[in-house]
Amino acid sequence: MQALPVPTYVDVVDAAARLEGVAHRTPVLTSGTANDRTGASIFFKCENFQRMGAFKFRGAYNAISHFDYAQRNAGVLTYSSGNHAQAIALSARLADIRATVIMPHDAPAAKIAAAKGYGGEVIVYDRYKENREQIGERLAQQRGMTLIPPYDHPHVIAGQGTAVQELIAETGPLDLLFVCLGGGGLLAGSALSAAALAPGCKVIGVEPEAGNDGQQSMARGEIVHIDVPHTIADGAAATHLGIYTFPIIQRLVEQVVTVTDEQLLDAMRFFAQRMKIVVEPTGCLAAAAVMSGIVPVEGKRVGVLVSGGNVDISRLGQYLA
Amino acid sequence: MQALPVPTYVDVVDAAARLEGVAHRTPVLTSGTANDRTGASIFFKCENFQRMGAFKFRGAYNAISHFDYAQRNAGVLTYSSGNHAQAIALSARLADIRATVIMPHDAPAAKIAAAKGYGGEVIVYDRYKENREQIGERLAQQRGMTLIPPYDHPHVIAGQGTAVQELIAETGPLDLLFVCLGGGGLLAGSALSAAALAPGCKVIGVEPEAGNDGQQSMARGEIVHIDVPHTIADGAAATHLGIYTFPIIQRLVEQVVTVTDEQLLDAMRFFAQRMKIVVEPTGCLAAAAVMSGIVPVEGKRVGVLVSGGNVDISRLGQYLA
Repeated sequence: MQALPVPTYVDVVDAAARLEGVAHRTPVLTSGTANDRTGASIFFKCENFQRMGAFKFRGAYNAISHFDYAQRNAGVLTYSSGNHAQAIALSARLADIRATVIMPHDAPAAKIAAAKGYGGEVIVYDRYKENREQIGERLAQQRGMTLIPPYDHPHVIAGQGTAVQELIAETGPLDLLFVCLGGGGLLAGSALSAAALAPGCKVIGVEPEAGNDGQQSMARGEIVHIDVPHTIADGAAATHLGIYTFPIIQRLVEQVVTVTDEQLLDAMRFFAQRMKIVVEPTGCLAAAAVMSGIVPVEGKRVGVLVSGGNVDISRLGQYLA
Repeated sequence: MQALPVPTYVDVVDAAARLEGVAHRTPVLTSGTANDRTGASIFFKCENFQRMGAFKFRGAYNAISHFDYAQRNAGVLTYSSGNHAQAIALSARLADIRATVIMPHDAPAAKIAAAKGYGGEVIVYDRYKENREQIGERLAQQRGMTLIPPYDHPHVIAGQGTAVQELIAETGPLDLLFVCLGGGGLLAGSALSAAALAPGCKVIGVEPEAGNDGQQSMARGEIVHIDVPHTIADGAAATHLGIYTFPIIQRLVEQVVTVTDEQLLDAMRFFAQRMKIVVEPTGCLAAAAVMSGIVPVEGKRVGVLVSGGNVDISRLGQYLA
């Protein structure tokens, strides 16, 4: 496959046009309690209300919308810890093409079921023993399918950037923007939009403490690989940033911070109790950094990306009980 | 206290003007899954996103907005199983007057804490042994406060009617409208709005099976009193309809149906899993009647009132697990 150029904000604008009328324009919610507790004005961009329940639809659909005739005929392939798989499966169904998704054996049952429900073929692998990139590339070659990886792809990054584009269009200038960080697709895309639309805004990436490869990569100035982290934030369990995402993050992101699983649970309970919304652990990363006071936000206008809401209902029950 | 005239749709319009910029205009959500399962077009009016987490704010604020100078000086008193108490406490705070609320000893801790958090004085009683109407009237007389009961009051009914007024303004004509039924304030107000704005629309009240006094009252043509029902729908545990609510319901409501606690739990899980929203048991009544197929809805345009989202987080965890 030919290398694609590094994405810029121009590609976010292009993606927004492709997603118009296809992706939901998700609500921006506020909470008097969150504002009182932090002394800030917080704007929650609620991608848990996005199609298939997470921002991932934006990048996946944008990538597939670029397929030529031959690619559409052969179909799309991906590997994912969950939400990207559903996003590819749903986008492929909308484009009427075949989709195969490679998912970890311990992905939430709801995510595996949803990918199948959208008509995708699901192949399961052991994420502690097998390498999903290798499996993906081998299958893509055997079947002639186009591989759309979950984050390290220009069209995926550009698609993810449309969420923050919508957020800032609605809120106006922001002082701070918090975005969860797994492989960096959402963070890189968000940073492109923030740099273009709210130039003074500091963008903060938030990782699970158990998997702080992004923080390490920023400190070392190169992509650091780690073992698969054990965290409830299953959507941010990537082991390394990508060759597209890292340079953008390095250039445009102010800082990467980490939060514990306990802080994620606090945020999840806050969302359910006070804001009446269901947010998956990964979707709580950005909010947890703000609500737990890791980064000072008093007096600031703060954007918080709520990335998704796909959590097994019984597991959600355990988290909240 | 002088008897107030029976409310009409004119009073709903008046209430809407008083609530403008004070109450939230809550979102109307749709769900592809809900539509697929039922074959209907369902519009969920999400009052769980209303201020203090339930539609009750509308009626309480509307009632207090009618207070004269002497009433404001003396303050407001109410009895409530929970959400109306919070609604009165918050509305009183906004109007800068004193509020006393009489709550059952076994009301969800979240509801008691919230009423106190809004600055209300909370007095607890045993709802299986004591009569809240009598306690309320005695206290009102002793303290000179104005008693605003949770449902049987023209200004409360008119305020509650504004939710369906907003719903139909957004969706256009509906064939069916499902509304939860406790004491009948929301159902009566909703029926006034539906009759005025969507004349062909059939309005269905939905009660917990354990407390079907509304259904019995419709059958007998008079207000039937029952014992306090044991149901997870704590907001619909009223023991009888009111002298204002019953005649309106009798005239404008097509039918009252019942659902079981198990059907409420199914609906609650559906809301959390598929729609990513937290709905309290009482708030699931209307949806449960639709999703469980009790009333045929295929091919219809259906409004569903989601009345509130105030549920103790640990109890929510148990319900979902």
